[in-house]
Amino acid sequence: MKRSQVLVAVIFLGLSLTAQKQFDQTFPPDVSAPDRLRTKRTSYSAIMDVLRPTRPRVTQAQLDQLKTLPLESIFGALGDYRLNYARGFTNTRPGERVIGRALTMRFLPPRPDLVRAAETVAKEADWDRRYYARAAEEAQPGDVIVAELGGAEGHNLFGAMAATGIKSRGVSGVVIDGGSRDLAELQGDAFKGFPVLAKFFHVTTTSWVGVEFNAPVHIGTATVLPGDVVVGEDEGVLFFPPEMLDRALTAATETERREAYERELLLQKKYRFRDIYPLSPALREEYDKSRKPR
Amino acid sequence: MKRSQVLVAVIFLGLSLTAQKQFDQTFPPDVSAPDRLRTKRTSYSAIMDVLRPTRPRVTQAQLDQLKTLPLESIFGALGDYRLNYARGFTNTRPGERVIGRALTMRFLPPRPDLVRAAETVAKEADWDRRYYARAAEEAQPGDVIVAELGGAEGHNLFGAMAATGIKSRGVSGVVIDGGSRDLAELQGDAFKGFPVLAKFFHVTTTSWVGVEFNAPVHIGTATVLPGDVVVGEDEGVLFFPPEMLDRALTAATETERREAYERELLLQKKYRFRDIYPLSPALREEYDKSRKPR
Amino acid sequence: MKRSQVLVAVIFLGLSLTAQKQFDQTFPPDVSAPDRLRTKRTSYSAIMDVLRPTRPRVTQAQLDQLKTLPLESIFGALGDYRLNYARGFTNTRPGERVIGRALTMRFLPPRPDLVRAAETVAKEADWDRRYYARAAEEAQPGDVIVAELGGAEGHNLFGAMAATGIKSRGVSGVVIDGGSRDLAELQGDAFKGFPVLAKFFHVTTTSWVGVEFNAPVHIGTATVLPGDVVVGEDEGVLFFPPEMLDRALTAATETERREAYERELLLQKKYRFRDIYPLSPALREEYDKSRKPR
Amino acid sequence: MKRSQVLVAVIFLGLSLTAQKQFDQTFPPDVSAPDRLRTKRTSYSAIMDVLRPTRPRVTQAQLDQLKTLPLESIFGALGDYRLNYARGFTNTRPGERVIGRALTMRFLPPRPDLVRAAETVAKEADWDRRYYARAAEEAQPGDVIVAELGGAEGHNLFGAMAATGIKSRGVSGVVIDGGSRDLAELQGDAFKGFPVLAKFFHVTTTSWVGVEFNAPVHIGTATVLPGDVVVGEDEGVLFFPPEMLDRALTAATETERREAYERELLLQKKYRFRDIYPLSPALREEYDKSRKPR
Amino acid sequence: MKRSQVLVAVIFLGLSLTAQKQFDQTFPPDVSAPDRLRTKRTSYSAIMDVLRPTRPRVTQAQLDQLKTLPLESIFGALGDYRLNYARGFTNTRPGERVIGRALTMRFLPPRPDLVRAAETVAKEADWDRRYYARAAEEAQPGDVIVAELGGAEGHNLFGAMAATGIKSRGVSGVVIDGGSRDLAELQGDAFKGFPVLAKFFHVTTTSWVGVEFNAPVHIGTATVLPGDVVVGEDEGVLFFPPEMLDRALTAATETERREAYERELLLQKKYRFRDIYPLSPALREEYDKSRKPR
Amino acid sequence: MKRSQVLVAVIFLGLSLTAQKQFDQTFPPDVSAPDRLRTKRTSYSAIMDVLRPTRPRVTQAQLDQLKTLPLESIFGALGDYRLNYARGFTNTRPGERVIGRALTMRFLPPRPDLVRAAETVAKEADWDRRYYARAAEEAQPGDVIVAELGGAEGHNLFGAMAATGIKSRGVSGVVIDGGSRDLAELQGDAFKGFPVLAKFFHVTTTSWVGVEFNAPVHIGTATVLPGDVVVGEDEGVLFFPPEMLDRALTAATETERREAYERELLLQKKYRFRDIYPLSPALREEYDKSRKPR
Repeated sequence: MKRSQVLVAVIFLGLSLTAQKQFDQTFPPDVSAPDRLRTKRTSYSAIMDVLRPTRPRVTQAQLDQLKTLPLESIFGALGDYRLNYARGFTNTRPGERVIGRALTMRFLPPRPDLVRAAETVAKEADWDRRYYARAAEEAQPGDVIVAELGGAEGHNLFGAMAATGIKSRGVSGVVIDGGSRDLAELQGDAFKGFPVLAKFFHVTTTSWVGVEFNAPVHIGTATVLPGDVVVGEDEGVLFFPPEMLDRALTAATETERREAYERELLLQKKYRFRDIYPLSPALREEYDKSRKPR
Repeated sequence: MKRSQVLVAVIFLGLSLTAQKQFDQTFPPDVSAPDRLRTKRTSYSAIMDVLRPTRPRVTQAQLDQLKTLPLESIFGALGDYRLNYARGFTNTRPGERVIGRALTMRFLPPRPDLVRAAETVAKEADWDRRYYARAAEEAQPGDVIVAELGGAEGHNLFGAMAATGIKSRGVSGVVIDGGSRDLAELQGDAFKGFPVLAKFFHVTTTSWVGVEFNAPVHIGTATVLPGDVVVGEDEGVLFFPPEMLDRALTAATETERREAYERELLLQKKYRFRDIYPLSPALREEYDKSRKPR
Repeated sequence: MKRSQVLVAVIFLGLSLTAQKQFDQTFPPDVSAPDRLRTKRTSYSAIMDVLRPTRPRVTQAQLDQLKTLPLESIFGALGDYRLNYARGFTNTRPGERVIGRALTMRFLPPRPDLVRAAETVAKEADWDRRYYARAAEEAQPGDVIVAELGGAEGHNLFGAMAATGIKSRGVSGVVIDGGSRDLAELQGDAFKGFPVLAKFFHVTTTSWVGVEFNAPVHIGTATVLPGDVVVGEDEGVLFFPPEMLDRALTAATETERREAYERELLLQKKYRFRDIYPLSPALREEYDKSRKPR
Repeated sequence: MKRSQVLVAVIFLGLSLTAQKQFDQTFPPDVSAPDRLRTKRTSYSAIMDVLRPTRPRVTQAQLDQLKTLPLESIFGALGDYRLNYARGFTNTRPGERVIGRALTMRFLPPRPDLVRAAETVAKEADWDRRYYARAAEEAQPGDVIVAELGGAEGHNLFGAMAATGIKSRGVSGVVIDGGSRDLAELQGDAFKGFPVLAKFFHVTTTSWVGVEFNAPVHIGTATVLPGDVVVGEDEGVLFFPPEMLDRALTAATETERREAYERELLLQKKYRFRDIYPLSPALREEYDKSRKPR
Repeated sequence: MKRSQVLVAVIFLGLSLTAQKQFDQTFPPDVSAPDRLRTKRTSYSAIMDVLRPTRPRVTQAQLDQLKTLPLESIFGALGDYRLNYARGFTNTRPGERVIGRALTMRFLPPRPDLVRAAETVAKEADWDRRYYARAAEEAQPGDVIVAELGGAEGHNLFGAMAATGIKSRGVSGVVIDGGSRDLAELQGDAFKGFPVLAKFFHVTTTSWVGVEFNAPVHIGTATVLPGDVVVGEDEGVLFFPPEMLDRALTAATETERREAYERELLLQKKYRFRDIYPLSPALREEYDKSRKPR
Repeated sequence: MKRSQVLVAVIFLGLSLTAQKQFDQTFPPDVSAPDRLRTKRTSYSAIMDVLRPTRPRVTQAQLDQLKTLPLESIFGALGDYRLNYARGFTNTRPGERVIGRALTMRFLPPRPDLVRAAETVAKEADWDRRYYARAAEEAQPGDVIVAELGGAEGHNLFGAMAATGIKSRGVSGVVIDGGSRDLAELQGDAFKGFPVLAKFFHVTTTSWVGVEFNAPVHIGTATVLPGDVVVGEDEGVLFFPPEMLDRALTAATETERREAYERELLLQKKYRFRDIYPLSPALREEYDKSRKPR
């Protein structure tokens, strides 16, 4: 089709399309925000305004069960949330896992007006402008601090003093898409059971400015919403919504059980690998029988 | 000092400090947000709630003057905002500059609940969930689209069709901390005067989800607030608040004038370099004379 | 379930599973290869042995039509082959595209025994051990040389002399997951119409050893089979099987036509963006009408 | 010399050169491959067809001796094979070494036709399309699995279940130019003596397609042939042909002996460093005497 | 101002500026260096010629006190020297620290004339061309070897034999902006108390050429002068001039004391975080009291 | 050999080795440097003290001939200096080459004492502490500025004003292992014939401190000595000693001549590639005849 023909076609369609919205739309005026909205402890987020009503709070019992399951089995139970995964962290406590509820923070690079505004809000709200201090005052047992902080080119979240304060509130660990200071101290015995997963460690103090607290963030290519389930270890970190947890626990537990059976079979060296993993129909039948109460 | 001494000290100070806030503070209840706040065209941001009242709107005349000044002279006039700079972009139109007012967007990696929430809000607000479509409907002449999109590991903002729509609204260019598709088409003549600075180009369609529109974002290690002045070119991009623009224009213009004088002197090959750049007292005096009306 | 129960279960299932293959299987002896198989010009590949019978040869007419279509429209027509895409190349001829049939080569890092074996085969087969020389003797018009060569940590494929020889055979261009020398010469007028996409350019001569000719290779995260359709440009390169070409041409042509229409509509500034891209039902109807012969 | 002179020279040489092969050579027809060649367990490779007859099989005794020697002493004994070295791995078992015979695998990124062809071959050959399953059925004691899998931008080879199966065959370890899943499990006690060296660890399942089994591959900038000697540790991995092993054992053992002597001398703090390392003529004489039977 | 006006101004100022130095200055002849300057053990450096007279020698007592203080507290006491910090090292002895006086070395990539010159100087001076051998002969107890060696694209400094020699002189550790060999051996018990911090580990022998010994070098973005105080650990390395050490010890010790107090308060869970870190006026008063002799 | 035997051997060799130098050598006192050595314009370098007497000064005629030869032909004529090559630069003037004599500079990261010392020396010597200013006063026609400045993590050398001053002295171009500012201006017409090859471009001013002027430096993995021949272009930069230039010119010119002949033959499409490149004995004979005077 030649360009001129297109033009002709376009010209002729004008009349019949009066219902279409025009190029220069007029938009209705925005609703205005209440005066003190900016001092809400949980930063306002349109996304969470939609989602929060249907998100259950993860219980400690659920978290305890989660701790017994390997990362890969949980991954296998997450369906479309599988890809919501981040890696490339250094764990201050290799081998220790971070499991809990996401308490999220978002930071931006500092500049004078941003710092001034953050200070204004902090003063009005009577919280500390330093978000690590807020975590040390506001976090709940079972929380995991999840901080969006610029990744490899970002900045430090905190040091060991803030980590002490945060740990003292029962927080399970910290995931930082950015850095931390005090590596040596965080590796010490005082921080057993409190792993910090960070992209780097640097001696410097903090500088980026906290701008949203418990609102949606991203850690690498994973989105984290406040209240998400966090399962992290040296390999990487999974984040998924709390409403998936029961299903994930069931599926991962079943995976674990079947894989324990398969592992035993492998160690017996009786059957070839492909008949065990996955189970051949015959072995599957045996497995199913073995699970029934006798 | 031994640890035991510290303990003793701590124990004894209890009485005199009753005014201190306790470890387990109780916080006042949060104000609740109005029902339709989530459909505000300009996403609610506590930071902007503080700053917006004192931020002027950059005029076209200011932008026109800005276009005559090199990046480095503007940089030199920015004081504490100098470091608010991002680089590492590929320019679809090498040598063309991006100058205008920041219209910002923030994106997060997709996951089912996030997509669902964004769709809900879009439907309620009668805007398109695709933020590039919103830009093609809502942007104003002189705007520069500034999109936080995950950097080198992020995703695409748009392709040439959206670029056509956005350009047709008088937008001056686009800065993406992430990618774009349709590199070849954006390099074509149809996009003259509409440079796109992106971290990468990829054939794929878009996938990340727009979650904030005209709220604070970061591009690499620079914070960008909606309405900021944007000055970008192949070397990198400066972002600074509009209230600094007049001062920056004056200072950068004076720098340009003096450097033009210095350049002429250098090409004359009469004096040694260090007496010209910076001007020696004697040459400075001559320069000052040359500027007076005669 | 406790571990001991698993063991019990495993022990009891022995009898009923005699049909299962044992851990230590015995395998039938391999067929032996004919003496001169190693001198086949098209290296033997089990994968191609399966696929080749059903792969048509791409015609010049198809390639000519392909040249009129942008990369992104072709991408949109590729279904499950969309992800078979590689990027990160520098094009010696920015803006020129590489379109044709893949002639593939695979190289390995040199070591004395490998060099010796490659020389033995070359002598027996009467070809040149240097695969770029083979391309300059064996390539056909419309071929695109596709070389797996170690990526960013790999080595050079060739220099301008070999490029001259290869171009003289009617080859359309070269895609190297590795390097090339003679950047300046390849940018010169003599190589117009012969783009080389490489990961890097380096002054050194070649060293890696060609081990397979016209057998499956990978270029970054894309698999390339000999005879694949190659569509490359500055943004990246698509590879897909020849049997998909007709369908891709049809679909991409239709996309182009519709997008031309949409582009015209956008430039008219009459309707809002989202009603044009994608076309609203009303505009779609107009578009469909415009395409009918009148 | 001017260009025209070259042309004259070229034109005149035609007659005397009739023996030269022409630009458009005709090639003899290729030998055809036997029907079932594609189901050979050891993939057909022209290179191995030349080399295999003269490559001895490494014995367990040789491997045992190799385990007593440090990587650097073996490196020093490898002559032109020194550079056949790869590094950049993470070892699941820091400090444990991988020593054995290379069982190689080559993988390509998945696409529908490739997957279909691999499945066809696997069915015909009665092996498992998953190459990790083949390793768990076909590997021999003392083998080391060496997988070419795309490096840092590649994919996972396997997880802990396959590792269990492979380990149960007496395999000494795994070297992956790509990734693995189940890091935490592979670090557990069950995998003592079975180090996995990979470029990265990721929670995802496998996707790349095995296309050659026990044929030449490359791991970074090192070529690995099936049956090669593999010596790997945290620092990196050496690969060299089995026919070099006896010589390497002798030379490395002598190096070790001399260096033990030098180390003792250093710790004595009697002589200056440069007279000990390397041994001065006088100390060399003493050393030689010390080695003679007395 | 138009360009022509500038030119006029420039032309007229010629006369009054005769005191300015001319474009083509004549420079006084250089002083000639004494014959044997090139064999000075401490390489001649103009910078050190200025600074050395006022730089004290760090004492062992100072170093011993330094060992009791964490990196971050020392960092906090360094003022403008804080940024003189390097990171990105792998520590052969994770958790062990490198503290001492910098003995610096600078290396350049090898080329025939450079090697020849280095050999000539070494012969004249009666030292070993290999700088690691010089360190093993010339280093003093408490020294830390600091080698500028090309960073990630550089080369190896030494292996375990040289490390044995260097350690035997009482050297505290080694910081290499480049590589080392013999990772496994350096991790062994024989090297307890002798951490090597390097950018990478590689099996190869050394090749870069030592050109300056105990002259200024840089390690990443930190400048190191001979005699500087070095404090390194897994997180990174600080370098600062010896004249700052006393002040740094005092300030860091005070920081430690206060932070111990704060840590105790945090663990008491009595006051909210922000009143403890930093100490509120009331708590500060208590702290000050607690430090007074009672 | 057992460890105890080594010990015995070591103990017994004491007597016969009295001629060996002891562990704790005493070194002769160093020669002292003359007072004003630190103000030598050409920084003192032990390496250059050895090499300078035998290094000729490259003539303009040689440089002019060099400009006619491609990088790769010169590379082929450099023997052991081939590897003295650096790449990874962005050229401000793509396609333009940098050819000349190296005027080298070495920079270190700033810290207060280093800045103070550099200022002291500059004042005593009456030169400008800014080394770009020194280049703008001291460089000679045909020089190429070669600056070691920290590579990708380093800093800026200069901006357009200094470039103007340096260009005005007849300098041929600049190679920076570090950055530059004023990219846009350097790409302008005023800088035609003055290419700047840098690792990056950044808006910031300079900060690293010049510490050696015309002394040995390295650019990536290449060593550059003052007075070296520099041949750079988009692909990379070769550096080699002036005494090799005549030989390189002869060899590269002959290569060019032969390759022109080969290129003509290739374009004739008469003979197969391998008989032309390299020339078969018969064609070689024809070529040799064609070169004789007739």
